[in-house]
Amino acid sequence: MAYELHYWPSIQGRGEFVRLALEDAGVDYVDVARLPSDQGGGEANLASWLSYATPPPFAPPVLKAHDKIIAQTAVILAWLGRHHDLAPVEEEGRMWVDQLQLTIADLVAEVHDTHHPISAGQYYEDQKAPALARAQAFRQERMPKYLRYFERILAGNGAGGGGLAGAAITYADLSLFQVVRGLQYAFPNAMAAMAPDIGAVLTLADQVERRGRVAAYLKSPRRIPFNEEGIFRHYPELDE
Amino acid sequence: MAYELHYWPSIQGRGEFVRLALEDAGVDYVDVARLPSDQGGGEANLASWLSYATPPPFAPPVLKAHDKIIAQTAVILAWLGRHHDLAPVEEEGRMWVDQLQLTIADLVAEVHDTHHPISAGQYYEDQKAPALARAQAFRQERMPKYLRYFERILAGNGAGGGGLAGAAITYADLSLFQVVRGLQYAFPNAMAAMAPDIGAVLTLADQVERRGRVAAYLKSPRRIPFNEEGIFRHYPELDE
Repeated sequence: MAYELHYWPSIQGRGEFVRLALEDAGVDYVDVARLPSDQGGGEANLASWLSYATPPPFAPPVLKAHDKIIAQTAVILAWLGRHHDLAPVEEEGRMWVDQLQLTIADLVAEVHDTHHPISAGQYYEDQKAPALARAQAFRQERMPKYLRYFERILAGNGAGGGGLAGAAITYADLSLFQVVRGLQYAFPNAMAAMAPDIGAVLTLADQVERRGRVAAYLKSPRRIPFNEEGIFRHYPELDE
Repeated sequence: MAYELHYWPSIQGRGEFVRLALEDAGVDYVDVARLPSDQGGGEANLASWLSYATPPPFAPPVLKAHDKIIAQTAVILAWLGRHHDLAPVEEEGRMWVDQLQLTIADLVAEVHDTHHPISAGQYYEDQKAPALARAQAFRQERMPKYLRYFERILAGNGAGGGGLAGAAITYADLSLFQVVRGLQYAFPNAMAAMAPDIGAVLTLADQVERRGRVAAYLKSPRRIPFNEEGIFRHYPELDE
């Protein structure tokens, strides 16, 4: 039976990290909320499904795999990693990929807060002044800190065509690809300025993008384009 | 050989979630950075140790257990849960506790940003206006959303003396205790107002606090008091 992904239907968001892993693994899945509403799709059906799911998820994305209901992006990915060959088999390697994913998750939360530093429940336009300040601190301090960290790991691994956890590509590499493309979309100027310092990170992103099933997915209508409802938003004033 | 915890020596911070698990499990450990500097303690030694640790941690806390170096709070806790009986044995139960812990981690990050909504690298006094706005949104929207979520889980479990994942107390329950006490410290007014709605959460916190080894730890000098350098800070103006 196909897995079910339950996530907002109009954004990449955190669901995209799960979509990329499902696509790369070649797993049969249904992106339920993107179905027509009379087939269970749409935001109202999603909200209803979430309210009845057990154990109760705090927020989407949620994966239904066989009889399991799994929430929290990093937990979903760890499960897919174990069961679909996107993570090392032994405990130490798995824990390292788990760590990388949580560091990526922290970065993603900080990206979100560049445009919503006060409240996700208020409009961007109503928190634009603090957004300008937070985005500046993010571009100047946090983004370089995170990206140089991943660069250091890849350089330490020889940066020779492998990923963050060695030769085999893991779900953390897929996620880093998504973060790099997202940052390039949201902060093209800041990312262009950083390019000379993060050669191995950019090379890894290119390498992930060329993987057969990832490349096919990115060209398909299943890939929702970046947009200004998601986590990575291009507001030019936040990239100056 | 005793485990080593590597974390900032003057705050509870994220390290406290690890300390509580180590203490409750009765594990022999050294809180390395709290040693005198000629025995390897202090912030300079911590920074040096972190820069050489492999695989490279992004940030503390880091646990050294036997020959393993484990970073990211939730990964450390999952490992302690597996190896020291603070989590269910089967996969589904373990994943549920992982999910709970990541939801708690998200809440903790939001608490931090109530006093540092712009940049952790700038003084609170220099970001006080956005801090007032973010703290208000946190108290009115986010804190109730998180705490009612945990209340709903405990109520669903019968709230009969067990924890978030059933009868046995897990590391997520220890962490929820820490969050409850931290929120009561930082936002005493908001927490008092919420008390009637989160009876099961408060009862669980009391239950954890009375566990033998936790109670002994809390009374010991090993427990650093809440203070205004940590995540949970009492700035009265953020609780009005």
